[in-house]
Order: sequence, then C-alpha cells, then structure tokens
Amino acid sequence: MSQFGEIETPAVLIELERVEQNVLRLQSHCDRHGIALRPHIKTHKLPRLARLQIEAGAIGITCQKIGEAEVMADAGIDNILITYNILGDSKLQRLLRLSRRCRLSVVADNAVVVEGLAGAFVGEAQPLNVLVECDTGAGRCGTQSIEQTLGLAQLIHNAEGLALAGLMTYPPMGDQGRVNAWLQGARDALLGKRLPCPVVSSGGTPNMWRAQEVPTATEHRAGTYIYNDRSLVRAEVCSVDDCALSVMATVVSRPTAERAIIDAGSKILTSDLLGMEGHGLIASAPKAKVAGLSEEHGTIDLTNSPWNPRVGERLRIIPNHACVVSNMVDRVYLLRGGEIECEERVAARGRVT
Amino acid sequence: MSQFGEIETPAVLIELERVEQNVLRLQSHCDRHGIALRPHIKTHKLPRLARLQIEAGAIGITCQKIGEAEVMADAGIDNILITYNILGDSKLQRLLRLSRRCRLSVVADNAVVVEGLAGAFVGEAQPLNVLVECDTGAGRCGTQSIEQTLGLAQLIHNAEGLALAGLMTYPPMGDQGRVNAWLQGARDALLGKRLPCPVVSSGGTPNMWRAQEVPTATEHRAGTYIYNDRSLVRAEVCSVDDCALSVMATVVSRPTAERAIIDAGSKILTSDLLGMEGHGLIASAPKAKVAGLSEEHGTIDLTNSPWNPRVGERLRIIPNHACVVSNMVDRVYLLRGGEIECEERVAARGRVT
Repeated sequence: MSQFGEIETPAVLIELERVEQNVLRLQSHCDRHGIALRPHIKTHKLPRLARLQIEAGAIGITCQKIGEAEVMADAGIDNILITYNILGDSKLQRLLRLSRRCRLSVVADNAVVVEGLAGAFVGEAQPLNVLVECDTGAGRCGTQSIEQTLGLAQLIHNAEGLALAGLMTYPPMGDQGRVNAWLQGARDALLGKRLPCPVVSSGGTPNMWRAQEVPTATEHRAGTYIYNDRSLVRAEVCSVDDCALSVMATVVSRPTAERAIIDAGSKILTSDLLGMEGHGLIASAPKAKVAGLSEEHGTIDLTNSPWNPRVGERLRIIPNHACVVSNMVDRVYLLRGGEIECEERVAARGRVT
Repeated sequence: MSQFGEIETPAVLIELERVEQNVLRLQSHCDRHGIALRPHIKTHKLPRLARLQIEAGAIGITCQKIGEAEVMADAGIDNILITYNILGDSKLQRLLRLSRRCRLSVVADNAVVVEGLAGAFVGEAQPLNVLVECDTGAGRCGTQSIEQTLGLAQLIHNAEGLALAGLMTYPPMGDQGRVNAWLQGARDALLGKRLPCPVVSSGGTPNMWRAQEVPTATEHRAGTYIYNDRSLVRAEVCSVDDCALSVMATVVSRPTAERAIIDAGSKILTSDLLGMEGHGLIASAPKAKVAGLSEEHGTIDLTNSPWNPRVGERLRIIPNHACVVSNMVDRVYLLRGGEIECEERVAARGRVT
C-alpha cells in the first residue's frame, strides 16, 4: 500500500489500534454492568467496523436511515435497530424488503407513523418490532408523557403486523437519574397493562461510562466512541490519545508569520462546532488554532504557537465531531502500526433516506 | 418522471427557470460592463449547469480542486481555472495529464508552489498558465505586498513550462475600491517590469452587482449566484424568489405544540451559519425557525408562527449556504414548471483533492 507521503490531502485517517481499544473498552464496561451494547454505525459507516463491533460482543447495530441499514444488511449484519420515525410508501416498501432479510426494529413516537408501519406490515409472517420513542428531556422526538407512551404502545400492540418491542430514548446528556425515572415509569405503566416491554434502549457516547446509572435500560446505543473526537476530549470522556480519526492536511500557504492556510476546509472538517471555539485540534501543535474554515481552506492562527510550518508540511487534525467527517469522504485510510493498511470505501456515506 | 409526492425526503430540488434567470442576469450584467464571467462550479458540481453557463456566455469555469476540474473536463468543458495552490507529486501529475486535454490555468502565492509546478511542466509543449494570487484584504491565501507579487510573477515568468497569466484574488466582500487599488498597483508593477498581465481575476457572489467597481479586473468569478441562498437574501443580493435550490423535508414528529421535527438535519443542510441565526428559511412559513439540527433531524420552533404542520406534511427550506448542500447529496432533482424534469447525479460532489 502507498506510503504516507504519497497520500493526497486532505484525507481521513483511522488508526485501527485505537478503534479496537475503544470498541473493547466500552464493550467490557457494558458487559460488566450487564447492559447490551448496540453501536450506532453513523460514526464510521463502514461494514468492516460494524462487524468488528459485533465480534467484540455487540448485540446488533443502530442505524438512523433505511439506506444505512440496507448497506449494513448487504454486508451481513443481522440485527438492526433504525431509530427513526419512518413515513411514506416508498420508504415503507424498502423497510418491508429489508425486514425479510434481517432482524429489524424501528421506533415510532406518533400514531401516523404507527399506522403507516401497520399498513405496510399487515399480513407479514414476521411482525416488525416497534419501540416507542420517549422524550426523556433531550427535546427532539419522543412521547411527552407516560400516558401518551402507553397509548402509543397499546396502538402498536393491537396492530397486526407489528410487535411492541419496548421503549427507546435519545436521552439528554448528563441527567441519568431523570432519564431512568422517566423510563422506569413508562416501563412499569406498560407492564401494569400487561403490555410487553422486553427492550429499553438508551444511548449516547458522552453518557457511556455512566450507562449503568439508567438501570431500567436493557441496552445502550453509542456511536462516536469508536473514533472519539475533540468534543469528547473536552467533555473528558476520552483522552487525545483515544481519538482514532484524524484529518491529514497540507500547509498550502504561509501568507504571514501568524497565518498558515491548509487544504482542509469545511468540505472535510464540516462547520460543526458543538459549542466549542475553533474547528479542530492539532495534536502536535495544540496552541495553533484552527481559526476559520471556508470550503476548501482552513486558516490556522499561529499567534500563540511556537510552531512555524513551512509550505508543503503535513499535519493531522482531530475534528470537533468525527461522525460528520466520515460522511464527507468517499474513502478513508485505515492505519496500523503507523502505516497504511488499506483504503476503505465509506459504504454507507451520504445515505440521507 | 416521478411525482413530487413520490420523492423520498430529504431531497435537494433545483428550479431550472430560476437557475436560467440567475445565469442570464449575471451574464448580462458582466457583458454590459465588459467583464468576462468565469463561474465557480463548486456551487452546483453539475457538468450540465457548467455547460449552461458557458452557453450563456461565460468564458470558462473556476474549480477549487483538480478532482472537480477532471469531472468538468470529462464533460467537455475546455477552459478551466483552478484557484488553488497545488502541491505534491501525485497532484502535479494529475494536473499535467489534465492540462493535455483542456485549456488550464492555476494560481500560486508562494515559491514552493511555483517550483513544484515548474518541475512538473518543464519540457511540456504547452506551458501552464499561472496567476499570482494576491491577498487584497480577505486574509486567506495570497501575496501580501506588491513587491512580493512582483517577485513571484518574475519567478513564474522565468520558469520554463510556466506562463505568467496575470493576477487573481479572492477579495474581501464590500470594499471594491480597496481591491481595485491593490490590483491596479500590482498590475502596473508587472507591466512596468514588462511582465505580461493579460488576466486580472476577481470574484464573489455578494460583490457581483458591483464587479464593475473593480475596473482593473478583466474577469469575475462567482459561484453561488446560480442558486442563491438565505445568506444572499439577507445580504440583499437577491430575493427569496431568486433562490433556485431548496431542501424538501417531511415533518416526522410533532412532540409539542411549539415543536416540529423534520427529516432534514446537518447531513443535508450542513451546520454553516454564515453569521446568521437558524439553519435555513421556510419560505412558506418564514416565522417558523429552523432552530436546531442534529445529523438527521431538524427542530422547528413554531412559537412565533401560525403554521401548525401535521406529521407527514412536506416543506421546503432555503439553506443558509447553497454550495455546501450540493456537496452532501449524490443526486439532485431538477424541476421545471413545478414538476420534476429529471434526477441528476452530482458528478463533482466530494472531490476533496
């Protein structure tokens, strides 16, 4: 395989040792606490790494879109939860076809979605597993009360073609006690009405080391942990040395003593700030600030840095948000022992539907 | 072709009548003022629309990356300016191959880049056109003084395999007088040393109606004008009705009276704010705020809006920044007369090198 120096920049590099360590570390944590782990593949979008997660002990995977799940099913992944309200005939037909070739679950937070799913799956030999999505405080999708959760659960349970599989939440970060109280109340309400609730699915990478503080949850979904990123270093969930994904860039211009321009802009690093200043961390020169991005240029402010890069010099940037970077490129380079092992196509990139 | 209702969302829609009007309007403006127009294809990344721009009178196109230029040359576009410092053997070899099949120009703002280009093109029958990139105030790439510009121009002029083609700038928005003074000083310095300066290339869509206020410029590069977007509406460069690109989304959840969740998130709208609040404009309900984005969800704040969408309802969003949206999708839908004319592959999407 090509040497480092031959790679054209910008390029996304993935260090496999760090990936493996990150995967094993969270798997052991979940194993230790008796929580099933269901990784979200949005972070890597690579069947190869989904298989690695399964082999390490994950019970299946999480996808956000049918298109992602199709790619993963094509690669032989069998147990898939799509954490999304799926609507519309065309998508429902795709979902139906997908359900015939893998174990599949979806979520719903409203009756329109349940009716659509029920209409598509009526008469199917294998009912579709549906979890009620609950808003435990994150303020995105989800039922707003236990009463509403119960009503929707009843609707799913009564629908031919659907099987009530439990509860799911995309929780707020940090308040595990509140999340647990919410889920416990909802689960108990279901069980009180003799409704099944085999799965209670919570998630989040920032929360992952505290997954056990939501004992009602039977499984935890996490995505970013496989790569980590600057936002998680800042949240003290991981260290810089745990970050497996970086963007390699080249200094293309040194207009002034304080300014270096690199060939990585928002088309590879994205504009995601996640509440931070700057557009990534240069691990080898942390005082150099990735101060601005246009589409194909990054502006490095060297004012407070002793680093004085020459034109042509290469650097590696840990992005603010790893997941969105994976979605910007058709291929990534997988590294082992500091050498390129192979190039990998980002098979589930850009699957917006 | 499929009806609107059959399109899976989120989807990028392009209204061709608006595209054609936008193309013709800027072309006439440039024609009237005797300025050559060299559209930047980063906005659409579609050979079909590059051809439309050429047929309307553009002298050629602008690309930011060799990969974009390769796609456009494959589609028969002949006159291409790559406004980028190109470095590294692999890219220089690609550039050399590209130069043998189309009229090609590049820029350089430092001696390392010039030496690389000269090394690759020495002995070529057709020298490579190189413009000196000048920093006229935008603070990105570019020479910092007339003296430096002159030195680099001399280096290019003396290099076998290269032809000095003039000056290029990515100007600051708004201060046309200063940009003109800079370019005029630099051009006069070149001419005073009997160096050629046939082309002086400035650009920018926010500046486009004032391109004539930089009379030293022989050509203007603009990209976003073909689609326009919320940032340009806000800058009063165009009206909402001139916006040709929109993202069609579906309301997937109505958790509360004030909140609607749509299936368009940062994976299609991107996180680009361009100094604005909110993530796009819902033209049919402008008081509804696209308040937050995660990767696959958008949160609409309906607090100040009379709009009360039901689950399943569709809407169209004019994004903050059109160019970056084109880069997020593998295909777009082209519309005429409010109907879908065809689907078009975004051929130059994701060309980061």
